[in-house]
Amino acid sequence: MTGRVIQNIARAEASVIDGLAACGVATVHEAQGRIGLLAAYMRPIYPGARVAGSAVTISAPPGDNWMLHVAIEQLAAGDLLVLAPTSPCEDGYFGDLLATSAIARGCRGLIIDAGVRDVRDLTEMGFPVWSKAVSAQGTVKETLGSVNVDIVCAYQLVRAGDVVIADDDGVCVVRREDAAAVLEKARAREANEEAKRAKLAAGEIGLDLYDMRARLEEKGLRYS
Amino acid sequence: MTGRVIQNIARAEASVIDGLAACGVATVHEAQGRIGLLAAYMRPIYPGARVAGSAVTISAPPGDNWMLHVAIEQLAAGDLLVLAPTSPCEDGYFGDLLATSAIARGCRGLIIDAGVRDVRDLTEMGFPVWSKAVSAQGTVKETLGSVNVDIVCAYQLVRAGDVVIADDDGVCVVRREDAAAVLEKARAREANEEAKRAKLAAGEIGLDLYDMRARLEEKGLRYS
Amino acid sequence: MTGRVIQNIARAEASVIDGLAACGVATVHEAQGRIGLLAAYMRPIYPGARVAGSAVTISAPPGDNWMLHVAIEQLAAGDLLVLAPTSPCEDGYFGDLLATSAIARGCRGLIIDAGVRDVRDLTEMGFPVWSKAVSAQGTVKETLGSVNVDIVCAYQLVRAGDVVIADDDGVCVVRREDAAAVLEKARAREANEEAKRAKLAAGEIGLDLYDMRARLEEKGLRYS
Amino acid sequence: MTGRVIQNIARAEASVIDGLAACGVATVHEAQGRIGLLAAYMRPIYPGARVAGSAVTISAPPGDNWMLHVAIEQLAAGDLLVLAPTSPCEDGYFGDLLATSAIARGCRGLIIDAGVRDVRDLTEMGFPVWSKAVSAQGTVKETLGSVNVDIVCAYQLVRAGDVVIADDDGVCVVRREDAAAVLEKARAREANEEAKRAKLAAGEIGLDLYDMRARLEEKGLRYS
Amino acid sequence: MTGRVIQNIARAEASVIDGLAACGVATVHEAQGRIGLLAAYMRPIYPGARVAGSAVTISAPPGDNWMLHVAIEQLAAGDLLVLAPTSPCEDGYFGDLLATSAIARGCRGLIIDAGVRDVRDLTEMGFPVWSKAVSAQGTVKETLGSVNVDIVCAYQLVRAGDVVIADDDGVCVVRREDAAAVLEKARAREANEEAKRAKLAAGEIGLDLYDMRARLEEKGLRYS
Amino acid sequence: MTGRVIQNIARAEASVIDGLAACGVATVHEAQGRIGLLAAYMRPIYPGARVAGSAVTISAPPGDNWMLHVAIEQLAAGDLLVLAPTSPCEDGYFGDLLATSAIARGCRGLIIDAGVRDVRDLTEMGFPVWSKAVSAQGTVKETLGSVNVDIVCAYQLVRAGDVVIADDDGVCVVRREDAAAVLEKARAREANEEAKRAKLAAGEIGLDLYDMRARLEEKGLRYS
Repeated sequence: MTGRVIQNIARAEASVIDGLAACGVATVHEAQGRIGLLAAYMRPIYPGARVAGSAVTISAPPGDNWMLHVAIEQLAAGDLLVLAPTSPCEDGYFGDLLATSAIARGCRGLIIDAGVRDVRDLTEMGFPVWSKAVSAQGTVKETLGSVNVDIVCAYQLVRAGDVVIADDDGVCVVRREDAAAVLEKARAREANEEAKRAKLAAGEIGLDLYDMRARLEEKGLRYS
Repeated sequence: MTGRVIQNIARAEASVIDGLAACGVATVHEAQGRIGLLAAYMRPIYPGARVAGSAVTISAPPGDNWMLHVAIEQLAAGDLLVLAPTSPCEDGYFGDLLATSAIARGCRGLIIDAGVRDVRDLTEMGFPVWSKAVSAQGTVKETLGSVNVDIVCAYQLVRAGDVVIADDDGVCVVRREDAAAVLEKARAREANEEAKRAKLAAGEIGLDLYDMRARLEEKGLRYS
Repeated sequence: MTGRVIQNIARAEASVIDGLAACGVATVHEAQGRIGLLAAYMRPIYPGARVAGSAVTISAPPGDNWMLHVAIEQLAAGDLLVLAPTSPCEDGYFGDLLATSAIARGCRGLIIDAGVRDVRDLTEMGFPVWSKAVSAQGTVKETLGSVNVDIVCAYQLVRAGDVVIADDDGVCVVRREDAAAVLEKARAREANEEAKRAKLAAGEIGLDLYDMRARLEEKGLRYS
Repeated sequence: MTGRVIQNIARAEASVIDGLAACGVATVHEAQGRIGLLAAYMRPIYPGARVAGSAVTISAPPGDNWMLHVAIEQLAAGDLLVLAPTSPCEDGYFGDLLATSAIARGCRGLIIDAGVRDVRDLTEMGFPVWSKAVSAQGTVKETLGSVNVDIVCAYQLVRAGDVVIADDDGVCVVRREDAAAVLEKARAREANEEAKRAKLAAGEIGLDLYDMRARLEEKGLRYS
Repeated sequence: MTGRVIQNIARAEASVIDGLAACGVATVHEAQGRIGLLAAYMRPIYPGARVAGSAVTISAPPGDNWMLHVAIEQLAAGDLLVLAPTSPCEDGYFGDLLATSAIARGCRGLIIDAGVRDVRDLTEMGFPVWSKAVSAQGTVKETLGSVNVDIVCAYQLVRAGDVVIADDDGVCVVRREDAAAVLEKARAREANEEAKRAKLAAGEIGLDLYDMRARLEEKGLRYS
Repeated sequence: MTGRVIQNIARAEASVIDGLAACGVATVHEAQGRIGLLAAYMRPIYPGARVAGSAVTISAPPGDNWMLHVAIEQLAAGDLLVLAPTSPCEDGYFGDLLATSAIARGCRGLIIDAGVRDVRDLTEMGFPVWSKAVSAQGTVKETLGSVNVDIVCAYQLVRAGDVVIADDDGVCVVRREDAAAVLEKARAREANEEAKRAKLAAGEIGLDLYDMRARLEEKGLRYS
């Protein structure tokens, strides 16, 4: 059941992926109906990064990063590595050498439900990582896992070729086949928010802007 | 029991509030006898902010941010929003639109025993938040809570109009009626520390500065 | 059993300590066979610091920082303070006054399996701290502990005079008597990595660079 | 601010308290509108106990159980001890000697947002405890706290004389002045549930019993 | 995307399901190559239960148990309810009334990545539950979820009709289509273990029984 | 540094070890001055067990239980296995086969700062385990660790031959060379407690029994 590498995966269109990155995690998550958000413990190693890419998925044994080397060969420019261990682990699977190699293949970052190390180097290299932990604890290369199979990463199912968006708010996965439709909704949402933002900045408040007063009263809200 | 909005709350004097902000959390907490510190898991979304304000309190259902809209109408310039969910929740109750609205009312920041999102935008806007989590997970507007009632936020009782101070060390609440007295003590403490700092920087050590040697010996400390 | 201060501790050579700092935690940890890494919950109060020093160890009661004052007198230039409470505690044992005093003695930083406060001041002073928590909660001076005895800090045994290295990846302890040998291995590792980095940056991948393909096939890896 | 003992506290009627115990935590919590539930980390040291009593509250320094001795003198038959430390602590504040003394005063149990020890003895004695931790780590008797002041215990405000109910589902606090009204609602709820239980046991399902089908369809539920 | 109920799901053969229950979680998990184990925080509400059943899956909003009522109608005798909230939640979704109804439909237990209540009643009824938390906090019936869609429960993907095995060691999911093959391997494993157990009980040790000495020596193990 | 097995370890006298077991963890911990208590997350798999034994220590890689087989050969009757992984791990290192083998060697139980499985079987066999987790996740046999070297287990240093006591209150380690002296103090403590217990049961309270009133008054305790 392990030991499989799926080689030719379908990817969403580059313009769609980049459009989703521009919208950011919170907007995309809303636009697709609030599904696909990875657990809040997935944090960026440095603030300010915002990326999207096609997922190259990795199912790895705890404490074993062998499959990362296998996965790097499967990377196309614009991809993100997404790794889930088969049991909980906070060891540092990934450091600056693997990042050097990933960057050479056009990889945009790493999402890892485990640990990462060399974070000062990764920060200087501008290679963003969202992880569960930072740990200098290294890993071995003894046991097979799989690449580009379905994985569960930080509570969410991620499939090879799905679009993953990550920024300071967290990480969100969009099914590849839904990506274009989600982008359209995300952009509509952004346009709508822009108009609201101007009104709110001018001092109008949500109770009026969203016409909430009647329903609040009906629910029984009392002022005193 | 829920569904109440208290409208006209008493506040401490602006000069007292600003004085407490200048002293910072660690000094204020000491000055009032080490009470009122919120749990250490309340962390700022960006480093370096230091604010104080009058608490506009919000008791909200888990995953429901409706009362934030109600609370914003109750804000006066210089206030802080302080939200506690009625059961543990890490969803992102607050983002850039609510912040735009809060800023328009003169609000100085948010203390939330739950999650926040759009943190990159909030950082750019200079709107500080101390929260339990960062999460893009949105909330609904279905169930009433209350505004300006007593709440328990991150283990501490906070009452509407209490002074809340927040910086990189955490968040501390001072009862409104104690604020002036606490400020006086905090300033005395600062003056006292300034003198000590110069001596310590010059190389004098605490064992001598605080005259600790005799008591340590009496307690049985042995050097070898 | 408590109440002891060991005064004259042996230290590693300064050049060895500085060499280990230059290598960093991840490399040193690998070089000594992946032992000595403190728990991943030990995080720096600001990013980018990298230090090494001889451990002046402190065993302190929960919520009592008296022994820090005693320990400061034992500091030599180039030392690190390493504190472990005798039962779990997140109170803020250390702040800007103690840092002022420690800096005056040539101390390079603090490793503390508990809390720290005044972190904005410490950041401005450039005094690095790796801690379990940030908390404004102060401590008392009532009960003796010990200085320069063996302690267990964040899951690792630390002895007075051991070399402690800390950076963004965490904290690692090297036995004093092993320090020179570990440095040699760490440097060899770095030289070796430098060569690999160039090849990886040029596009060669780990599967070829580390000659992994045959062993993966033998273990049963299947491509599809 | 600390060092106070309030001696003569008001209590709810014994029959009301016993009635609330008979209803149990889940029912009482529902009956009072889902407020007052302590955090879910408060667990019983043995299964099967169900008690209610008037709270004798204790605010104690971390790692200091002196005030428990003071509180025991304030106990009347039918009371529960409710202790909250002033900063997080898992030490074992309470063991078999204190339990012997508490039982002699008619105390029904202990609710403690910290640790307890001698749990095998307490189990044999039938003295129930709901705690955050079990720990053999003892405490000191050095610093004053207070008895029968307002405390925040496991996220909830508890006042002296409030009724506290505890069973395998957790711990719930009912304001003293609301106790009779809450009991009435709890009993109505129980009667109502009894009728439903019979129907459900006979095979009727909630969709019909609670008449949910129309609203589900209206919300858009689709069967396939 | 939510609001779906899949009605006619395929199930594994009853004899296979019961066979897997008899083998238990640890053996089944090994037999299928160490995949499918739910997170270790899923604990039984009472010790000693061991069950297997076909999963009726529930995707539920946080704090909303409406879909449990919908799911109960979909139960066949021998099924297990498996619920995952769409964002982390510890509220008590399930209590004795729902259990009464589930038992009437032949349900064997509940696996819930959230909270449960009425645990004393459930224990007396012999209805086993594996949950993340026990909490008296109730839930609402406001928002749709789905039944018998793919869910991620405690880090594992569970599909309707998959076989779920649960005992004191935790919870494991076996794909429906793999169930017969896994059972065969599990039984082979058990037979093999039985023989070993006798030898071990007689005093033979694993170093000899598993012929480990040569490989340990080759790896460099030194006795002193 | 790894890959070592120390074969002939010194042990405390059997009568001393058994005496310490009879006193229990809380008393022994007090008797030796409140040192040596393992972290409170170490919990027994079933209630009621109370054992003491000489530690056979195991330092094991994460997810690798090979050294347990090596350690079993080193067991003498009356020993306890004490395992610490070299980085945090919750996998199930130990199950019923290893227990069968350990029992055949006279082993009294296992202390493991990681996971255990087959807990129902272990409970039936009466083989007690104190662990950080229960998990069916198995381990591999690939990498060497060491046996009977110094380890840090759940925050405490444990040396081969040290006496470890474990019961429902947790786990405590006593240095081998201190064991007889600690036993003497523990027994004195028990005798002293027996007399107090009778007085407390008769209604005398601690304030009088321990003569606390004057010191409380002097510290400023006020009754109102």
